[in-house]
Amino acid sequence: MRQPEYLRTVQSFARRELTGKDAYLDSLAEAPMPLYERFAATGLANWWLPKDVGGLGLGLEESVRIAAELAYADAGVAFTLFIPVLTTSMVAWYGDAVLRERHLGRLVADNGFCATLGSEHAAGSELARITTTARREGDTIVLDGQKAFSTNTGFAQFLVVIARAEDDPAGYLAVLVPRDTPGVHVDKRWDVIGLRSSATYQVSLSGVRVPAGNALRGNGLRLLEVGLNASRVLIAATALGMARRIRDVCMDYGKSKSVKGGPLTANAVFASRLGQFEMLIDVMSNQCLAAARAYDAIATRPDAGEEFLRVGTLKQALTTKMFCGQTGWQIASTASEMMGGHGYTHESVIGKLLRDMRYVSIVEGGDDVLRDLVFSRYVVPVSKRS
Amino acid sequence: MRQPEYLRTVQSFARRELTGKDAYLDSLAEAPMPLYERFAATGLANWWLPKDVGGLGLGLEESVRIAAELAYADAGVAFTLFIPVLTTSMVAWYGDAVLRERHLGRLVADNGFCATLGSEHAAGSELARITTTARREGDTIVLDGQKAFSTNTGFAQFLVVIARAEDDPAGYLAVLVPRDTPGVHVDKRWDVIGLRSSATYQVSLSGVRVPAGNALRGNGLRLLEVGLNASRVLIAATALGMARRIRDVCMDYGKSKSVKGGPLTANAVFASRLGQFEMLIDVMSNQCLAAARAYDAIATRPDAGEEFLRVGTLKQALTTKMFCGQTGWQIASTASEMMGGHGYTHESVIGKLLRDMRYVSIVEGGDDVLRDLVFSRYVVPVSKRS
Amino acid sequence: MRQPEYLRTVQSFARRELTGKDAYLDSLAEAPMPLYERFAATGLANWWLPKDVGGLGLGLEESVRIAAELAYADAGVAFTLFIPVLTTSMVAWYGDAVLRERHLGRLVADNGFCATLGSEHAAGSELARITTTARREGDTIVLDGQKAFSTNTGFAQFLVVIARAEDDPAGYLAVLVPRDTPGVHVDKRWDVIGLRSSATYQVSLSGVRVPAGNALRGNGLRLLEVGLNASRVLIAATALGMARRIRDVCMDYGKSKSVKGGPLTANAVFASRLGQFEMLIDVMSNQCLAAARAYDAIATRPDAGEEFLRVGTLKQALTTKMFCGQTGWQIASTASEMMGGHGYTHESVIGKLLRDMRYVSIVEGGDDVLRDLVFSRYVVPVSKRS
Amino acid sequence: MRQPEYLRTVQSFARRELTGKDAYLDSLAEAPMPLYERFAATGLANWWLPKDVGGLGLGLEESVRIAAELAYADAGVAFTLFIPVLTTSMVAWYGDAVLRERHLGRLVADNGFCATLGSEHAAGSELARITTTARREGDTIVLDGQKAFSTNTGFAQFLVVIARAEDDPAGYLAVLVPRDTPGVHVDKRWDVIGLRSSATYQVSLSGVRVPAGNALRGNGLRLLEVGLNASRVLIAATALGMARRIRDVCMDYGKSKSVKGGPLTANAVFASRLGQFEMLIDVMSNQCLAAARAYDAIATRPDAGEEFLRVGTLKQALTTKMFCGQTGWQIASTASEMMGGHGYTHESVIGKLLRDMRYVSIVEGGDDVLRDLVFSRYVVPVSKRS
Repeated sequence: MRQPEYLRTVQSFARRELTGKDAYLDSLAEAPMPLYERFAATGLANWWLPKDVGGLGLGLEESVRIAAELAYADAGVAFTLFIPVLTTSMVAWYGDAVLRERHLGRLVADNGFCATLGSEHAAGSELARITTTARREGDTIVLDGQKAFSTNTGFAQFLVVIARAEDDPAGYLAVLVPRDTPGVHVDKRWDVIGLRSSATYQVSLSGVRVPAGNALRGNGLRLLEVGLNASRVLIAATALGMARRIRDVCMDYGKSKSVKGGPLTANAVFASRLGQFEMLIDVMSNQCLAAARAYDAIATRPDAGEEFLRVGTLKQALTTKMFCGQTGWQIASTASEMMGGHGYTHESVIGKLLRDMRYVSIVEGGDDVLRDLVFSRYVVPVSKRS
Repeated sequence: MRQPEYLRTVQSFARRELTGKDAYLDSLAEAPMPLYERFAATGLANWWLPKDVGGLGLGLEESVRIAAELAYADAGVAFTLFIPVLTTSMVAWYGDAVLRERHLGRLVADNGFCATLGSEHAAGSELARITTTARREGDTIVLDGQKAFSTNTGFAQFLVVIARAEDDPAGYLAVLVPRDTPGVHVDKRWDVIGLRSSATYQVSLSGVRVPAGNALRGNGLRLLEVGLNASRVLIAATALGMARRIRDVCMDYGKSKSVKGGPLTANAVFASRLGQFEMLIDVMSNQCLAAARAYDAIATRPDAGEEFLRVGTLKQALTTKMFCGQTGWQIASTASEMMGGHGYTHESVIGKLLRDMRYVSIVEGGDDVLRDLVFSRYVVPVSKRS
Repeated sequence: MRQPEYLRTVQSFARRELTGKDAYLDSLAEAPMPLYERFAATGLANWWLPKDVGGLGLGLEESVRIAAELAYADAGVAFTLFIPVLTTSMVAWYGDAVLRERHLGRLVADNGFCATLGSEHAAGSELARITTTARREGDTIVLDGQKAFSTNTGFAQFLVVIARAEDDPAGYLAVLVPRDTPGVHVDKRWDVIGLRSSATYQVSLSGVRVPAGNALRGNGLRLLEVGLNASRVLIAATALGMARRIRDVCMDYGKSKSVKGGPLTANAVFASRLGQFEMLIDVMSNQCLAAARAYDAIATRPDAGEEFLRVGTLKQALTTKMFCGQTGWQIASTASEMMGGHGYTHESVIGKLLRDMRYVSIVEGGDDVLRDLVFSRYVVPVSKRS
Repeated sequence: MRQPEYLRTVQSFARRELTGKDAYLDSLAEAPMPLYERFAATGLANWWLPKDVGGLGLGLEESVRIAAELAYADAGVAFTLFIPVLTTSMVAWYGDAVLRERHLGRLVADNGFCATLGSEHAAGSELARITTTARREGDTIVLDGQKAFSTNTGFAQFLVVIARAEDDPAGYLAVLVPRDTPGVHVDKRWDVIGLRSSATYQVSLSGVRVPAGNALRGNGLRLLEVGLNASRVLIAATALGMARRIRDVCMDYGKSKSVKGGPLTANAVFASRLGQFEMLIDVMSNQCLAAARAYDAIATRPDAGEEFLRVGTLKQALTTKMFCGQTGWQIASTASEMMGGHGYTHESVIGKLLRDMRYVSIVEGGDDVLRDLVFSRYVVPVSKRS
């Protein structure tokens, strides 16, 4: 089946710019901005941005294919390129016309990045416990606090900060903050065990002042839930891309390795493992696409923003990230053991793939948190069960 | 979301005729023909038969929903009702006009059953080793052999027998045999550990004579592969239905059971298990539907028969049965342990569900066989990988 | 290595009386008393009873070997024969000289059975919530309540009942009750999904009166914990015995079954599975023996009763039952799938073994309960960690 | 229970020299020889060497405790310190008096290291296919070949090389080679994904000449099997040590992390995980000790060398490494997911522990190879089954 053009563009970019550079991409060097400029040169930067702000308007289904294709080559690059969707979704649906035009429009023009500041040290999985505050002073909002994990902040154009509304104990805001606003300070880049081509930061906010109109419409925690729908599905899609890479790496290994007088691929245990991998990859792929279609069915409605506010966390976004994270880890674990001593050295890419894969079950909610959420939202109410 | 009418009909049938009858359906009593007559009275008997022979022509996607719904109540009844699709698919695509009209037409008229005779004792997973022979004598084909596992044969109108063509060492035939043909002998009904409302037989063929025109067009083994596509997906769908039942049984148990001063449903470990079940059920559901759509995309082509001959075993039919069998077993195992002493008695249905679930990974190819098939057909050829 | 004589006696009994009788033992027929008389005729009835009351005084290490050997043939028979150890341990260590002599002595003389009445419907895993009461009236104790699961009660000589002391909200008693005491009523025998040669009952106690001296010394819940140490290890040992049987059944199947022109045993996937089984069996065996030795090290001390009161639930009793239950289930699950259609019929014993195996993770505390216990008793206190 | 003195010495060394140095030990810096000198200063270097060559003569049971204790702090250091046992066992039992005295005696005197050169690139799991040759020239043996993975060679005093006997197609030799013999060349140190404080090398042998008396007595492959018995059990013991460390790291994390208003340790899912870890750790510990005792039972016999030649690969050495590798990986996987974002950074040690743990299932035979070995040696012969 012939691939659509956007996908061929991505494949060609990946082959040209990423393939063969595993060691470099695994090095935690500075964020490779020239690489991202070359991705922008393909015309696909921020491919999901709506057409009315000048974007390409690709849907989540196409995004799944792009994320999987990029992650086949390097999941950190994939994550860096798609994670702005979390931020832009909130702005696109819940920012006023001025914010959308100014900030999303500029993002399109500059092929830029943006970032969300949600989790805090003492509130990793329970966002309701965040302590960053948003205080109104006339027409201004003042933000103070510290955010633990925020990807791309170091080179973002703007941020969306989730904060507790000081004048309302039950209230939370999502506030758009231009990156160069005084008081925004990147404390450090995290030294992570995998996904090392991406850059995640700890960030402080000290008396950061923005106009009141920068607050997005609606409860900040709910908006964050909505924003996470797309990114969780795309994180799952990177597990799919990595799983395909692992399968292919195993097959290459199997062809080159001889056992009992034949290639390892002729061994029944090897065949059984690869048959199981392929089955799981097929299921991961179908699940990612099903989740993306469920998302797109809402996102293409005229009242998408309202509908998403009603839905909040989309069931399929949770199930897909959980499933692909668990399954990807299973595949990576098995593969890393199958490849013997060679697989334990840096001459094989399997070690990197194992460490990269680990992030899927951790970022944007660990499985314990997500299982609890699935239970309370989608099992307890009988009508929401699958 | 409002259910389509065929599905409401099935639900109402299940509620009326199956719910609350677990002990009876688990008894291995005689095949419950009056029950099947009442199903036929809903107008849905053999719901997939093509319109040109008088059938309803429902697709595999609808069939997945029906099979899952029936299996929620009883997987054996579901299996009995849909397994004729394996036989009728072969006849519909590879039988001549006379066979189609006479046998499929009569099946519609009578709301009847039919059966396939494939596996043999020494050739369970390697059909190429079957020893049942088809010998041509002029315009007649003579069949001799013994078939190990054949469902519904006891009350079928006609059979399709897979046999070795005696005049061609590489050749196999699929031959339509009216059930009342002299020489067809049901040796015994198997006493099975689960799915006990279904009836599977060992059958002997001694000098069974049918007209040469009863041989379906094409290699019998390939035809069987094609026929198994639909039934494997529907077997997977029964795992989905049973998994939903198990989840609901667990929730009922959790509400009734008190732990540390609250209902078990308030316990974090319980919630975590049910959240995981729900995730898996969502994935099973999406996978069954994706497989059904891939099947329907071919089945609705004008050249469906030719295309299926080219494709043979559909990848998604393999992956879906494997995945749902493995996942269903995991769910059933966990649930049967969660329910404590009560779950170990026949006062709970979980023991039946566990035994019923087991068949999914066994019937129509165990996972070892299917993994090997996925590997050789869909991993070794690079272009066929998911 | 030459087997000790007691073990050869057990093997010979099993071969003579149990082998080949799987269908009968799986039938839930009346408890096979003549069979137990023939076991008693070997001289091994209640083999663990202390020498000072006339018993053989075999330790738990020997008991592990006996239980595994019996369970190789039938786990229900094994369970029936050793489960009195739960009751007799409490009487031996915490009963006064009169009780020990009268009741344990008679047990030896009659090769009889006894039973413990602990769990209740609303207090399966939280014994502290039992509602059966023990009321003192002068020199008499009056018992009232209903007990959910009690094995062997139907044909026991005496019972030990765990009850709430009515005059002490924090107190629990363990009270010895002759089986023929008025007011003891067997409500029903449970119809269980496996282990069907054993007999477990629901029992009512209505105004059951025994002398105050029949109360064992110490808190009844603590005594029950102590009693469960031996039985949990022996339940684990039955998983070991069944796992060995499954392995051997698989090997027999593998030798008889031909795949790709050779016996299934020549297939690498089959070999891999059996190699994994053997590994697990070796670990189960070592774990059972290690637990038994830890138990015997206390049980052979002169102050065993006091020491056990201090220890309560022995760590190894918990870990061994958990491990062997989980591992046994894994082996049984895999095996039942490996054996294809044949394994799904009652012509194979694997279905019975699967159902029998299930009890290990359920009886005397499900894994969720035991994990919680291991955590609070043996992980939270740093010095108790392994 | 009071620890034996050798163990307290090890604990004190670990606390003093290793604790808090995870980042350094994970750096693949040069092999830390001063550290090993400080270990030697405790008097425990090569603690297992027989007393008749001046060693301490500690058994494998003691060695398990030492290896687990060291691995709690750093598995790479543990591996470096005990892996010479593989080499010295072969020399101790199969070298003549001169070799034993000269080389083992000097090892004791110098607290030195030695190494075995077995595996080759094309013969990782099938040693019979090695191509390194041993050619006799009069009283000299000449060795040529390349060895893939050899630990400690860079700083060893002597090596034992497994080679194909050029004059005997079925023959293999184990030849002792002083490290400074001309022609021994360390090609490179492997850059490994874990266990980075250990040093494993690729080594070339070009016309390496040693006296014929340096060949150990017996078939080289068999000798290697014997040597691997001790090291495989000790590798398993490092998994045990790491598992304990992971448990403790999780508990520390659980105490510091707050969830739903309480510490994470109060959460039922957390407790359940830790309860399961503790159970598995208890089983790993018992299994390592059982294997060590089985080994010591042979090793302390006067005819140990002969008996080991007869036994070859000890069953428990295989099962213990398999079990502890699988179980350790399961624990490390679960823990690395439980610890959320923090666990994905290098501020937590869990990433290192995960990578270190991986080696257990890879070094000295992957599980596929070992399962096959267990099957052919210990399942096929009925009398060898556990």
